Amino acid sequence: MLENNSVGIVAPQNAHFDTPLTLKSGAVLPTFDLAYETYGTLNHDKSNAVLICHALSGTHHVAGKYSENDKYPGWWDNLVGPNKPLDTNKFFVIGVNNLGGCHGSTGSASINPATGKPWGSAFPIVTVEDWVNSQARLLDFLGLPSLAAVIGGSLGGMQALQWTLAFPNRVRHALVIASAPNLTAQNMAFNEVARQAIITDPEFHGGDYYAHNAIPRRGLRIARMLGHITYLSDDAMGAKFGRKLKNDIQYSFDAEFEMESYLRYQGDKFAGEFDANTYLRMTRALDYYDPALPFNNDLTAALKQAKAHFLVVSFTSDWRFSPARSREIVKALLDNELTVSYAEVTAAHGHDAFLMPDAHYHNILRTYLSNIEIGGNDAK
Amino acid sequence: MLENNSVGIVAPQNAHFDTPLTLKSGAVLPTFDLAYETYGTLNHDKSNAVLICHALSGTHHVAGKYSENDKYPGWWDNLVGPNKPLDTNKFFVIGVNNLGGCHGSTGSASINPATGKPWGSAFPIVTVEDWVNSQARLLDFLGLPSLAAVIGGSLGGMQALQWTLAFPNRVRHALVIASAPNLTAQNMAFNEVARQAIITDPEFHGGDYYAHNAIPRRGLRIARMLGHITYLSDDAMGAKFGRKLKNDIQYSFDAEFEMESYLRYQGDKFAGEFDANTYLRMTRALDYYDPALPFNNDLTAALKQAKAHFLVVSFTSDWRFSPARSREIVKALLDNELTVSYAEVTAAHGHDAFLMPDAHYHNILRTYLSNIEIGGNDAK
Repeated sequence: MLENNSVGIVAPQNAHFDTPLTLKSGAVLPTFDLAYETYGTLNHDKSNAVLICHALSGTHHVAGKYSENDKYPGWWDNLVGPNKPLDTNKFFVIGVNNLGGCHGSTGSASINPATGKPWGSAFPIVTVEDWVNSQARLLDFLGLPSLAAVIGGSLGGMQALQWTLAFPNRVRHALVIASAPNLTAQNMAFNEVARQAIITDPEFHGGDYYAHNAIPRRGLRIARMLGHITYLSDDAMGAKFGRKLKNDIQYSFDAEFEMESYLRYQGDKFAGEFDANTYLRMTRALDYYDPALPFNNDLTAALKQAKAHFLVVSFTSDWRFSPARSREIVKALLDNELTVSYAEVTAAHGHDAFLMPDAHYHNILRTYLSNIEIGGNDAK
Repeated sequence: MLENNSVGIVAPQNAHFDTPLTLKSGAVLPTFDLAYETYGTLNHDKSNAVLICHALSGTHHVAGKYSENDKYPGWWDNLVGPNKPLDTNKFFVIGVNNLGGCHGSTGSASINPATGKPWGSAFPIVTVEDWVNSQARLLDFLGLPSLAAVIGGSLGGMQALQWTLAFPNRVRHALVIASAPNLTAQNMAFNEVARQAIITDPEFHGGDYYAHNAIPRRGLRIARMLGHITYLSDDAMGAKFGRKLKNDIQYSFDAEFEMESYLRYQGDKFAGEFDANTYLRMTRALDYYDPALPFNNDLTAALKQAKAHFLVVSFTSDWRFSPARSREIVKALLDNELTVSYAEVTAAHGHDAFLMPDAHYHNILRTYLSNIEIGGNDAK
């Protein structure tokens, strides 16, 4: 069943690129593919395109379903659709799977043309800058001169910000949600623990587990369980699970508290679906992103290239990408006399709030997006 | 070299108990040993004994060194010694290794008298209540009718609180530091991730790794790395490491940031020293402790038994045992018209602050402890 205002049944598409892509590390990808989806219709002057950048475990499947029987729609379906905040009656919306991903774009599990075998550990480490460069290639592929807007939450917000620095003339609006100008030491520490859980899993085989018909499930499971703690606030975990026991205390190491069952379920599910090498690379991209680093940590100087208009949104209970980090971005943008709207949304769901259909939050996005001017056959 | 005001060279002692101990789970330990140390001299009316309860990875070795060449003194040496806040010129101080521990007291690695082999997975899960009961046995063994004070931080603070409930007539003062009346869901979630890292380590062998000549080092290492994140505040990690790189970015999964080296070092060190079964049991004891549970979550009702005077201390940057949790204890004690002093110490070190020699914090302890009246040959 499709709900009201769904983009409906969608299909993933593939863009193949034969021109080598030089990455920030110096490594060169000779060819690559990007999996993407689009929703809505491109207007005749091509002024209504919006790119959605995904976070750690996201994909190009942002909205709609692949079949009527699909249990779940795309990961940001509550945002994207006809008459939804990101209105597909107005905008031509693009979702893309990041390079290094495991949902169709070229990554560690893909065949390395040089060897005829999976890239495995040889797949290079990609950065936020590399993703944005590859996404610009996708724009070229789609014949799009520029974006009306780029939008992303968390790691996706870093990409949205980077778009305005790398391609200031190709993006008019950037919506940077639940993000930060770089990770704190604590955030990086969580990433490091997750990576070490994966890398020390005996089934990891140095990243070449495909050749061993193995999957480092244990490590991925631990990484995901840990991730879930950081996506929720302490209060949100308290409200959702508290200290609720499944039965009387059994004096065992089984899942006796409901929260334990939840974490194990989430960990098991993820370990069966996601590629460990992708997880490692996504977290490393998060660690490395730091546009102010080449500017002596002066974020104002770093954002000097930007020309876009900005909407920055943070959530009060987000302890992983706290409002204070969003305000750093806002300040640096204002220092550069850019147009910035900032909303600090009172929300109980922690970092996950950016994915939730909170009415106040969605109204902020709806209002901002409805004010973006597009030309051509815009219905408005 | 011994510093000034050290208790000097100390030696661990052992107390053997032949009377079976029935645990909260119903399991019975037929015999058991407790490793302990003492500092200072018991006065003639035995009114100057102070018991120190340790936290997750602590031991009975609280102060002093085992030899002149020891690199480090006991874990709370900055607190305990002649003229230190817990003054061994005045008090007879006892450190004890908790039951289930791995530093001399009976635990999973000890020989099960029924089988002649290590207890391993068969060692029962012990609780805060069980620890306090076993510590009361130690008092009997030492011929001590009661304690002038019991003191502990974190999990040790839970034991201090429990002492006042289980043996209200045997403890005059309780110092409950950086603690909580139970764990939040988030805290329990961190424990669960740590345990799952250990339990799913292929070297764990269901807890019977001793028989396999194996050690689940990988899991212990992950557990400890995660622990270290939660002991420090985000700000403390930022101040200590920030985003400092060891060299230029290498685009690798090696330890490129200083924080990564620190976590790996701490994890490796711990995995070589600590017993995995003990870690599992210590975290489970933390999860389970909840004196208000049998009282419909009414902490005031739960603390009705207490007669002691209390000092409760919390630290502003402690996000794992936040000041709000300490205030819950204070309120419930005040509801019962008990004498309570409460200090909320401004400190940057997160949960670890309770182990640090912060002058303000130490002055609070010094003042409180100096006001405890003891009889007999008290020097004061």
